[in-house]
Amino acid sequence: VESRPERDRTRLFYAEGMRFVARALDSPRHRIETALYAPGLHDHPFALRLLDALRARGVPVLNVSPAAYRRLSLVDEPQGIAVVVRQRWERLHRVAPEAGLCWLVLDTVRAPGNLGTVIRTLDAVGAAGVILLGGAVDPYAPQVVRATMGAVFAQRFVRATEAEFARWRARHGVTLVGTSPHAAEDYHAFRYPAPLALWMGGERAGLSEAQQGACDAVVRIPMAGHSDSLNLATATSVLLYEVFNQRRAV
Amino acid sequence: VESRPERDRTRLFYAEGMRFVARALDSPRHRIETALYAPGLHDHPFALRLLDALRARGVPVLNVSPAAYRRLSLVDEPQGIAVVVRQRWERLHRVAPEAGLCWLVLDTVRAPGNLGTVIRTLDAVGAAGVILLGGAVDPYAPQVVRATMGAVFAQRFVRATEAEFARWRARHGVTLVGTSPHAAEDYHAFRYPAPLALWMGGERAGLSEAQQGACDAVVRIPMAGHSDSLNLATATSVLLYEVFNQRRAV
Repeated sequence: VESRPERDRTRLFYAEGMRFVARALDSPRHRIETALYAPGLHDHPFALRLLDALRARGVPVLNVSPAAYRRLSLVDEPQGIAVVVRQRWERLHRVAPEAGLCWLVLDTVRAPGNLGTVIRTLDAVGAAGVILLGGAVDPYAPQVVRATMGAVFAQRFVRATEAEFARWRARHGVTLVGTSPHAAEDYHAFRYPAPLALWMGGERAGLSEAQQGACDAVVRIPMAGHSDSLNLATATSVLLYEVFNQRRAV
Repeated sequence: VESRPERDRTRLFYAEGMRFVARALDSPRHRIETALYAPGLHDHPFALRLLDALRARGVPVLNVSPAAYRRLSLVDEPQGIAVVVRQRWERLHRVAPEAGLCWLVLDTVRAPGNLGTVIRTLDAVGAAGVILLGGAVDPYAPQVVRATMGAVFAQRFVRATEAEFARWRARHGVTLVGTSPHAAEDYHAFRYPAPLALWMGGERAGLSEAQQGACDAVVRIPMAGHSDSLNLATATSVLLYEVFNQRRAV
């Protein structure tokens, strides 16, 4: 499940480390297919308790050598415990638009770290999940999963075409808000209605003119100085916290 | 200048790509020591104009082979133009606390991408720069510089001990605000006075109890759901935009 074609074929993904294994065990919606354990690599007491919980759940535990585990691992200090989990995908027409704070819409995100960080922030603000337009973005890539710090188990993922998404929006009266550095509307002055979907463009080009035209509103995150852009995960997080702050009473 | 000891000894840093070379040329505060150019690698017309500007400035341009350039480069699609620039460090006692939106204080940041993204956001909100306590964090590491997308040339960097920083704060009446997931004060309800310094802890442990005790206030960025933490660059950016929004009239 390390390569995209392999992940797409098997519909599995890989998550390593005690924090991730605990989140996988806690998630009622995820099916753990296999666990990997490297005896002698770290042997943390919490890892041993997680192994017990995995075995009690009937999950096969595969022992591997520390060397083999290190080759699989993405981190500098591997904890020697990992799980292979079934991917969860939901159908757009069965998804309630008013779930959570909002939905996030993405079609092109290049950096796995950006996507993982975005998923982590979505979880922090209580968003519903991500609607992925087209097939370019894979939330189950190992580096993405890693950067979510476990939030991959708490957010929902939907894949849809632009046409399917347009129909779903129209049927449910979902307000779609995009962002652009050139938009007139200030993101902090705009009042975000519910149900809400936020559409973030890719790192390089942002949302195209046509994509902006499809939105109900396009907002701008203002910048001072010479800056002409924010990191994608930063911009998404700043926007999500604005919506979160508007909806809660402070 | 690829390794930390080498950078500390030479006090130089490396920045590659047309965007960075243009920012270096635009900065009145930075001295470009050398430029590297790999003829035949990309030869973009803008790169050729940048080379002319470098030569007009008297900067020696070193031609290297595409293969040699690729070995130096951090990016997948190298543009074949880079500069070696003198690091700029300012002394804390000569720094005005009321410069820009605020100062950011850091002592332990592990991920270069996080630090670079933070510097990029600092520039976007018109902050003054970063006060680095101790010697752990190097804003001139190549991966950090890369992630700033050029903002490294617009932000100021100061290195100080905790004692020096405490004296500077006291002398100028700087309000120091820290963050913790366990703080009582909501970051969005708190009113940030000027002059202001924000202290962000490291990715793993955040600010220690002692560090929080040294702050005038500690604020919490609230989270929904199971989340127990935000990415460091995310948390910093959300906090910076809160201060930015409070200071501007929307």
